[in-house]
Amino acid sequence: MNTLPDIKKQFSEWYQEVIYSAEFADHSPVRGSFVIRPYGYSLWEHIRDTLDKKIKATGTQNAAFPLFIPESFLKREAEHVEGFAPELAVVTHAGGKELEEPLVVRPTSETIIHYMFARWINSWRDLPLKINQWANVVRWEMRPRAFLRTTEFFWQEGHTAHETHQEAWEFTQRMLAEYVDLAENYLAIPVIAGTKSEQEKFPGAEKTLTFEGVMQDGKALQMGTSHLLSQSFAHSFEIKFQDRSGTLAYPYLTSWGATTRLVGAVVMVHGDQKGLVLPPKIAPIQLVIIPIFKSGESKDVVLNAVQKIENTLAATGIRVKIDLDDNKTPGAKFWHWELKGVPLRLELGPRDIAQNKAIVADRLGLAKEAVSIDELSTYVVQHLELIQKTMFDRAKERRQSQWHKAEKLKVFGPELVEHNGIYQTGWCQRPECEKELKQYQAATRCLLNEKTFATCFNCDLPSITDVIVAKSY
Amino acid sequence: MNTLPDIKKQFSEWYQEVIYSAEFADHSPVRGSFVIRPYGYSLWEHIRDTLDKKIKATGTQNAAFPLFIPESFLKREAEHVEGFAPELAVVTHAGGKELEEPLVVRPTSETIIHYMFARWINSWRDLPLKINQWANVVRWEMRPRAFLRTTEFFWQEGHTAHETHQEAWEFTQRMLAEYVDLAENYLAIPVIAGTKSEQEKFPGAEKTLTFEGVMQDGKALQMGTSHLLSQSFAHSFEIKFQDRSGTLAYPYLTSWGATTRLVGAVVMVHGDQKGLVLPPKIAPIQLVIIPIFKSGESKDVVLNAVQKIENTLAATGIRVKIDLDDNKTPGAKFWHWELKGVPLRLELGPRDIAQNKAIVADRLGLAKEAVSIDELSTYVVQHLELIQKTMFDRAKERRQSQWHKAEKLKVFGPELVEHNGIYQTGWCQRPECEKELKQYQAATRCLLNEKTFATCFNCDLPSITDVIVAKSY
Repeated sequence: MNTLPDIKKQFSEWYQEVIYSAEFADHSPVRGSFVIRPYGYSLWEHIRDTLDKKIKATGTQNAAFPLFIPESFLKREAEHVEGFAPELAVVTHAGGKELEEPLVVRPTSETIIHYMFARWINSWRDLPLKINQWANVVRWEMRPRAFLRTTEFFWQEGHTAHETHQEAWEFTQRMLAEYVDLAENYLAIPVIAGTKSEQEKFPGAEKTLTFEGVMQDGKALQMGTSHLLSQSFAHSFEIKFQDRSGTLAYPYLTSWGATTRLVGAVVMVHGDQKGLVLPPKIAPIQLVIIPIFKSGESKDVVLNAVQKIENTLAATGIRVKIDLDDNKTPGAKFWHWELKGVPLRLELGPRDIAQNKAIVADRLGLAKEAVSIDELSTYVVQHLELIQKTMFDRAKERRQSQWHKAEKLKVFGPELVEHNGIYQTGWCQRPECEKELKQYQAATRCLLNEKTFATCFNCDLPSITDVIVAKSY
Repeated sequence: MNTLPDIKKQFSEWYQEVIYSAEFADHSPVRGSFVIRPYGYSLWEHIRDTLDKKIKATGTQNAAFPLFIPESFLKREAEHVEGFAPELAVVTHAGGKELEEPLVVRPTSETIIHYMFARWINSWRDLPLKINQWANVVRWEMRPRAFLRTTEFFWQEGHTAHETHQEAWEFTQRMLAEYVDLAENYLAIPVIAGTKSEQEKFPGAEKTLTFEGVMQDGKALQMGTSHLLSQSFAHSFEIKFQDRSGTLAYPYLTSWGATTRLVGAVVMVHGDQKGLVLPPKIAPIQLVIIPIFKSGESKDVVLNAVQKIENTLAATGIRVKIDLDDNKTPGAKFWHWELKGVPLRLELGPRDIAQNKAIVADRLGLAKEAVSIDELSTYVVQHLELIQKTMFDRAKERRQSQWHKAEKLKVFGPELVEHNGIYQTGWCQRPECEKELKQYQAATRCLLNEKTFATCFNCDLPSITDVIVAKSY
């Protein structure tokens, strides 16, 4: 019954199709914007709630800033406006009139948040100031793809101000570490963490840290970034404070964000020919129960039994759903919930009840076994942990097999064009060598904190650190 | 130290000032939009999470729909576009080009959600469809006031589709009941629930239910609405389904929403001359600890003791904060947390520790007593419940004293103009009588399900049901 395109040969078509048929998202009548359907939104809620707890644990507080930003604000930081100008959506009319100054729909909120920071920060006692916002942002997208590149997307954007460069830099690294933990220990996605090149960093930042996932087709996906903005925005928005010695100083700023793109990453790292495969920790449904019966009498017995099991498992904190659709065969239900990537499936029929057992199968194909109904909770909790761990291990193995070390672009470039993959190589860090990657449809993804190669992938100058080179989304 | 305007004589100025000085909100550089600061946003998060649980318990699922709506969509439902046209913000340029069709920033999402409903609903098996969205919406506001009337605001908008008129009407009522429960049992605000008049109902709806709070100045505040949309939007967006008899039918729709205005209601119903007073169930901080010490030695002892108390209370699920600011006197701290409306304050000094006691005072002035440190958790839990109940009772008493029954507008109208207040009266339900209220700066707030008066407040025709008349925000 499965009609998904071949995941190995048509990865991009497979992705589109699985997103729609598993009801994660749908097209909308607004170009570049998508509807996130309840099942996809529930996954996002679990990711969001997990990240929100981590953010709050750093002493950062949530707040809300306006959707609209005066056009002049974006122009205050020269690199910033240059970076975002081509992607802006602009409100020119409102309340039945033409506006005196057009309003930009926020592509990110540094400018308006820093304007407010200047009002709130007066003394070193006001620092560090750590603010986060969960919001929708808009960047006009010419080649939209659900979750990966969309005109409107959802994210959190954190913005902090610190007394010293050192403290700001440590916080930039701290937030990257929180993201990496989210990716690896909740989304089950091993990532490559590093520093963006000067070309690829955030417009206006001193330094951008990134964490990149490796998708099944061997392309990299930037999953989120943490920026040391340093003092450039503080100067543009005149954020000043009286420091401990009583003199006026500019604070050091950071900003960091992760988006609904994480949903796309989960799909592209874990999915298979049957559909989605969702990590238990963030899966909207962790276990689906399929009651199996024929006659009316056995139906009542089975429905009573599955209801009891649901109550027991739900009381243990497991997210359970019973599929009661009487318009579908059990086989059609198996297929449906495999497509939707539910980690565990429990089948229960009259014969199982007679033996006080239920059949439990997992989405990874690790096991399908009869489990005593009395021991179900323990089994399910342990098995969900095993699935979570196995998913991470499998993704890590796959990443390893796609991660190559190679010296010279001329040698590995043609390989990269044809088969994708992640290439670790040396680089002199000059933009002219970086530009050579374009002809292979690739770019630098991040600089690593290690040095394996003596010379640059393109020229004969010494390599400064290793760099990751790949195609990307 | 308190410099708030007189709450009895200058209620409007008091509101503005308390919102800003308690750091609930701040002005923004975008006209009509405000910044919700962390303390105000945390209150909103507690309200939102409470309501979100209630919504999910009705079987409604969260999803996300685009911020932008094609201008032509709004025009499909004639009354709808007429109602919203003057308030729209319009994106005319994006991605560096003029758009072929302008995009409206959503003032509400019926049109785009119903467009999607038409794609998703085919059979009676797809019904009921119950979707909710937490989102920002924009309605251009000429007289903005933080939380009450803002160009951009946050809300949830629920949208459902049902097989029958009866089921849709029952769900419309169910959601109103959920809102009333939220208001009364969490926000501690007694409300008046009823039906909007034909003039005041949602543009395009068959019927609008509302719940109205009574503010301390005797004005009404519409706190949220639940609409029976019936079939008008289903026709406009061609939502059709095969019913149980196999014929094509149009579903019956509902929509319902509550906004960040609820934060303003909490401020205006409970605040006093000292500042905010927050209901314990939704207060960001339920108890603040003020350590009291002089010498360096007693400081360590006191700080150790308050840390232990914080841990114990937090483990009971109480939201606690220790005020460690060493730049403020205890007196200044008392004043600060009273302004911020924290329900309970705990003071602890060396002498208290010696007696194994702490001083606990509540924001309502009910009690200030020495409580054994061993019994703190029990005392605090009980006292928070008492405060919650007392706040509701006090608000109800106040509402009662402001709620008058009166027969003829000519008699009560001048009273209403001068002293505000809520007037319950009779009404023939003709718009020409309703219009007469304008000269008294009042309007109908809702029709009640009772009949006390023989004739209309304005003419001599029979009254159909009682109606609530008041000034409003």
